[in-house]
Amino acid sequence: MPSFKRTATIEKNGVNVSRLETGSHTGTHMDAPVHFVAGGISIDEIPVGKLIGEALVCDFSYKKRGSGITREDIEIVLQEKHETLGEGDMLLCYTGCSELWGNPEVNSDFTYLTGEGAEYLVSRKVRAVGIDFLSIEEFHSKDHKTHKTLLSNGIFIIESLNRELKRFVGQRVLFLTFPIKFKGGDGAPCRAVAVPKVVKRRD
Amino acid sequence: MPSFKRTATIEKNGVNVSRLETGSHTGTHMDAPVHFVAGGISIDEIPVGKLIGEALVCDFSYKKRGSGITREDIEIVLQEKHETLGEGDMLLCYTGCSELWGNPEVNSDFTYLTGEGAEYLVSRKVRAVGIDFLSIEEFHSKDHKTHKTLLSNGIFIIESLNRELKRFVGQRVLFLTFPIKFKGGDGAPCRAVAVPKVVKRRD
Repeated sequence: MPSFKRTATIEKNGVNVSRLETGSHTGTHMDAPVHFVAGGISIDEIPVGKLIGEALVCDFSYKKRGSGITREDIEIVLQEKHETLGEGDMLLCYTGCSELWGNPEVNSDFTYLTGEGAEYLVSRKVRAVGIDFLSIEEFHSKDHKTHKTLLSNGIFIIESLNRELKRFVGQRVLFLTFPIKFKGGDGAPCRAVAVPKVVKRRD
Repeated sequence: MPSFKRTATIEKNGVNVSRLETGSHTGTHMDAPVHFVAGGISIDEIPVGKLIGEALVCDFSYKKRGSGITREDIEIVLQEKHETLGEGDMLLCYTGCSELWGNPEVNSDFTYLTGEGAEYLVSRKVRAVGIDFLSIEEFHSKDHKTHKTLLSNGIFIIESLNRELKRFVGQRVLFLTFPIKFKGGDGAPCRAVAVPKVVKRRD
């Protein structure tokens, strides 16, 4: 669990100062390739230009909670929205699990991206994949195929985006996601910001 | 000192995971009003729209190290560059102290913003002030006038921007600075990104 403790206060010391402790994969955070890929690049090695770009927010909340998002699921959503995933696009998956934040049973039974879905995203050359809950991987996955497929192809992952993602479902947004820069970091807390309707799709 | 320790490794556990410990005012970070102002807003209460905007990067590296940047210094730089500080602009101060990072004597003898300089920035209604070294305040200040003047007027502060700021000296940039969002945070590590020459000045 993360902690954020006041170590000085205005009352006692004239200033509020805190100590922060957290995991590299706690809260809204980014996974760098080296999270699962030996020799992969780390958080501080992701070029900053990669952290700003166009993202498509797709609604997978119709799926049964705990099931996997497949290639077909993604293709159907794209077709319905008359959208394509182009090279360098980011895909943000809204599963609705974030609406149930704090319910312990969801922590071991959430909607995820299948390994085969991840392979499809690699073939589309997407830049990054985000999800609104704890992990993009099936709970208790043994092979971590989704993470490994994306990260070994240099596709970074943003996890624990929150329920606010719902506001942007079906839209293209300008997506900015800046992790704290730690040397060699396998992952890091990040702030994720979506700016709606700023970037128009070129057709 | 911050620490970033691996708690799981690919070799032993199949995955790299780390534990992060740091201060709320360590590394590149943002100060929220509640850092010095009882009842002031905290990091999580700064509207995200305030974190993206136009910044003017000014060169104060000609000043003797350890001296204070005054109202007059700012006015002279603005005049030389045919610039003004408008409502909502951010001011980023390049002192050059960041070039001496790691030299212990600089940590107690760095260029700062005077309280009177801070009052001038309040009168200009700037949105935020950044600096390329440890603090915007004179070392061992007793009254912390610079912090208190800015923060009590809702002007947030970004400290420990690094020597890369030099690249943007004399320019207006699009400046994005996203702190990690912690409830009640007096400050937080942030990532700061400058995009040059994207936003043109309206004259």
